[in-house]
Amino acid sequence: MARLRLRVAYDGGAFRGFTPNPGVRTVGGVLADALGRRLGYPVQLTCAGRTDAGVHARGQVVSLDVADEDASAGRLEALGSGLSRMCGPDVAVLAIEQVSGDFDARFSALSRAYRYTIWNAPEPDVFRRAVSWHIPDPLEVAPMVEAAALLVGEHDFASFCSKATQTVDGTERVAPTTRRVLHAVWSTPERGVLLFDIAANSFCRQMVRSIVGTLTEVGRGRRPAGDMRRILASRDRAVAGPVAPPHGLCLQSVAYA
Amino acid sequence: MARLRLRVAYDGGAFRGFTPNPGVRTVGGVLADALGRRLGYPVQLTCAGRTDAGVHARGQVVSLDVADEDASAGRLEALGSGLSRMCGPDVAVLAIEQVSGDFDARFSALSRAYRYTIWNAPEPDVFRRAVSWHIPDPLEVAPMVEAAALLVGEHDFASFCSKATQTVDGTERVAPTTRRVLHAVWSTPERGVLLFDIAANSFCRQMVRSIVGTLTEVGRGRRPAGDMRRILASRDRAVAGPVAPPHGLCLQSVAYA
Repeated sequence: MARLRLRVAYDGGAFRGFTPNPGVRTVGGVLADALGRRLGYPVQLTCAGRTDAGVHARGQVVSLDVADEDASAGRLEALGSGLSRMCGPDVAVLAIEQVSGDFDARFSALSRAYRYTIWNAPEPDVFRRAVSWHIPDPLEVAPMVEAAALLVGEHDFASFCSKATQTVDGTERVAPTTRRVLHAVWSTPERGVLLFDIAANSFCRQMVRSIVGTLTEVGRGRRPAGDMRRILASRDRAVAGPVAPPHGLCLQSVAYA
Repeated sequence: MARLRLRVAYDGGAFRGFTPNPGVRTVGGVLADALGRRLGYPVQLTCAGRTDAGVHARGQVVSLDVADEDASAGRLEALGSGLSRMCGPDVAVLAIEQVSGDFDARFSALSRAYRYTIWNAPEPDVFRRAVSWHIPDPLEVAPMVEAAALLVGEHDFASFCSKATQTVDGTERVAPTTRRVLHAVWSTPERGVLLFDIAANSFCRQMVRSIVGTLTEVGRGRRPAGDMRRILASRDRAVAGPVAPPHGLCLQSVAYA
């Protein structure tokens, strides 16, 4: 057995998320299917970030086990170039390499970085429509920057997470929602383009999109920037703002030791 | 009667070009249909560049006549914002204004600027796939720059034009193919991205795409840069290279006096 690590990009628009799910088109399903056909045996994928339906990735990381003879340098190169072709035009395998057997794309990850793109101009941008949220009303960026900074550090993000449960020792419990945010910054590289870059040790479900939805309310002047403290402290999903649409979100990169 | 000028952007991927054509989806057809429904009477559109099927635009210019009462400032603003919504997500009306009655989007234009985008890397780029030509083999840019420079000035571009005829005084003749190219430059703003910017007084059909197809042969080392002189002199379409695919091409802007 040899463990492989893949770096994968995808346009999430036509996928029902990453996690394989019979009967629907998912990134993991398409990848596992192509790998299985190339290798001649079924594989199990582990990914660093289980992106939701419609969310994109430029740097998703996937790990899987293959037979030793399939991990030779020549085999890996052929496998990588063949996979992009087999998966269709909306998935690209950017890198493929053998890693040590204790590497796990999910549990070895130290942090994940996501980017959310907003197109903030009265007119639509036809070329950005698949990868950005169009907000025609003007947003004030300075309070959004101030509010985002309040997220940095270790907090309970229950207010920004859709409720999830996990089973521990046979008992169903609410999944923990404490996370450590490394940075959360807005930038405006060109007129109309607002980028939100956020990195954390990990994210709970819909966390980035709930944060973005709330920050746009700050940008519209509906909430003061300092509201973020109160929202975090409440640990109540109903106190935060709406969930931003998935097609503005992209998993940019994953950091490992 | 009042004459209007529109600036329009579109993702050409799902259009059979600009020119209205019953039974197929064209940019001009969609625009004329939306305008007709808003105004309550049919309109005739003139465009600066009759882009082919699959070709994009960031700055297409369209002129048309409307009734005087529809050209008031308030009416125009409502018309512009309404049109983008009616035309669908792949067309955006960026500007709309009244112009003098002798303005004609096609015949008043002094020059058109097109950009062709190549994604030149072994792996595909899923986010650029709709707006760039993916060439996995490495291209050498320096000879492409040199070859492109030979196009500047007034030349007969018959070697780069699909044959067209026009009827003059009842006689069918081959349409003239002499054009004045103002600039033709390659740039590489980031790894893998090759941009070709070309402006001319006007372009004949498939001219930019035939030029790009030929220049990529220079970049692959299959032709020397100086070949461009010989190709131009031959006035023979068979001497030039293949036609580059439409989805890499975009009408960027049109200049008027």
